[in-house]
Amino acid sequence: MTRTVYLNGDYLPETEAKVSIFDRGFLMADGVYEVTSVLDGKLIDFDGHVKRLTRSLGELELTCPIGEGELLAMHRELVARNGIDQGMIYLQITRGNPGDRSFLFPDASVPATVVAFTQDIPNMIDAPAAKTGIKIITIPDLRWSRVDIKTVQLLYPSMGKMAAKKAGVDDSWFTDEAGRVTEGTSNNAYIVKGNRIITRALGNDILHGITRAAVLRFAREAQFEVEERPFTPEEAKGSDEAFSTAASLFVMPVVEVDGKPVGTGKPGPVATRLREIYIDEMRRAAI
Amino acid sequence: MTRTVYLNGDYLPETEAKVSIFDRGFLMADGVYEVTSVLDGKLIDFDGHVKRLTRSLGELELTCPIGEGELLAMHRELVARNGIDQGMIYLQITRGNPGDRSFLFPDASVPATVVAFTQDIPNMIDAPAAKTGIKIITIPDLRWSRVDIKTVQLLYPSMGKMAAKKAGVDDSWFTDEAGRVTEGTSNNAYIVKGNRIITRALGNDILHGITRAAVLRFAREAQFEVEERPFTPEEAKGSDEAFSTAASLFVMPVVEVDGKPVGTGKPGPVATRLREIYIDEMRRAAI
Repeated sequence: MTRTVYLNGDYLPETEAKVSIFDRGFLMADGVYEVTSVLDGKLIDFDGHVKRLTRSLGELELTCPIGEGELLAMHRELVARNGIDQGMIYLQITRGNPGDRSFLFPDASVPATVVAFTQDIPNMIDAPAAKTGIKIITIPDLRWSRVDIKTVQLLYPSMGKMAAKKAGVDDSWFTDEAGRVTEGTSNNAYIVKGNRIITRALGNDILHGITRAAVLRFAREAQFEVEERPFTPEEAKGSDEAFSTAASLFVMPVVEVDGKPVGTGKPGPVATRLREIYIDEMRRAAI
Repeated sequence: MTRTVYLNGDYLPETEAKVSIFDRGFLMADGVYEVTSVLDGKLIDFDGHVKRLTRSLGELELTCPIGEGELLAMHRELVARNGIDQGMIYLQITRGNPGDRSFLFPDASVPATVVAFTQDIPNMIDAPAAKTGIKIITIPDLRWSRVDIKTVQLLYPSMGKMAAKKAGVDDSWFTDEAGRVTEGTSNNAYIVKGNRIITRALGNDILHGITRAAVLRFAREAQFEVEERPFTPEEAKGSDEAFSTAASLFVMPVVEVDGKPVGTGKPGPVATRLREIYIDEMRRAAI
């Protein structure tokens, strides 16, 4: 089936959705994005994603040409037109097409480019990977210093995913210059020790995960302790459990770090429990 | 006049040149570029740009679908079709359009996207800025750690150019965590002390400027000493001269750093001389 995608107010067949070669998203990676999950045909934590989008846009002095109500209607329209039960909606906003290339931002008369499309993931809840857990390697974090802004500068995360694939594992976690984990290629990273969930504190060096915020809230409500501090790959290997979170992963158990099993080498009770809570709560609150 | 641009083998009016929203250049900044200057309708240091392009592509495991001969013919065709006497040709190669979004590289059957267009700059040699010199500010270098690969991840350089504009000056130079200059937003940075030209050595933290290589070669031939080491903004302020180099700038005198004049506050004899030599030699060797 040909997807219907959204481009600047129009709903188009995916093969017809094109942007100018002068779009600043294409020439300069001057754009931001969000990924919202869909469960039961409804949007998961849409408000959280819009809030973060607004922050990203603000940090880059980029004006979104459409309001939150219109964004919501558009997301729902894409879900309906593409018959999405489980999956995600990708939204990207760039600084538009000034008609030529310049490092200087174009003036305000150049409208932003707004693109959105769906990805159908029928087994998102019953993901096979969630049952076995995933394996990761760690690699140096070479990204820019403002990864709290969710820009489309994703070349290094993409290279990190390829490094994992070449190593025969599922994903990479990045480490800072002090050798401590920042986050995964497209997800936040956690370890578990007894009743304690440990994850790096928010800053300019990690994405302010919408799923992270929800999972930590649910964890506290379920009487887990949450400790926001960096940890090393070594500490991860000696932990009871590890996991990643992202809008499209929910809570994903990590069972191997750099070739060493974490805990029993199988998804542990904490990650499994948090995944259940997250999916239950989010389904209930979906809009 | 509507420019004629190049896109994947076709010559098109600039307004019709479009890429898919699924192009990895648009979604992931997964692409590299080069800018070749044109003088007297001929290409400046084309071989150097192709060599660096090949290196950038290699670092990213990206295959260029067209060979050097074809690239040269295409550059010349763009110059001819657009009647460029002085100006530049921008070339961008991305990992193409796999038809959907994924962090994993698509398989080799997905062809790279090749885009090129001209910019007409009639007063490139007699640039007014070269007569007055330019003013710069310094800002922290927040870019990723492989800026030796000439990728389209140009958001921060673009922000740096905007920071300069807001400060009422012409450009920004970046400083590393130790407070030493790496390079400018889209150019290499130099200071001059007596007969010595000082510029940061090549590494992963600066672009391996094609113009830099030529200018340093000409400087040595003209009996200047060349010292490749980092310098601070403070040292720049206390120097006799400062300048930037880039394909589109040639040698551009820098007369003010962070509000303080450099030397006399006017373009100095070394930068002026190197600019003359560079333009003369490059015009002679242009193809």
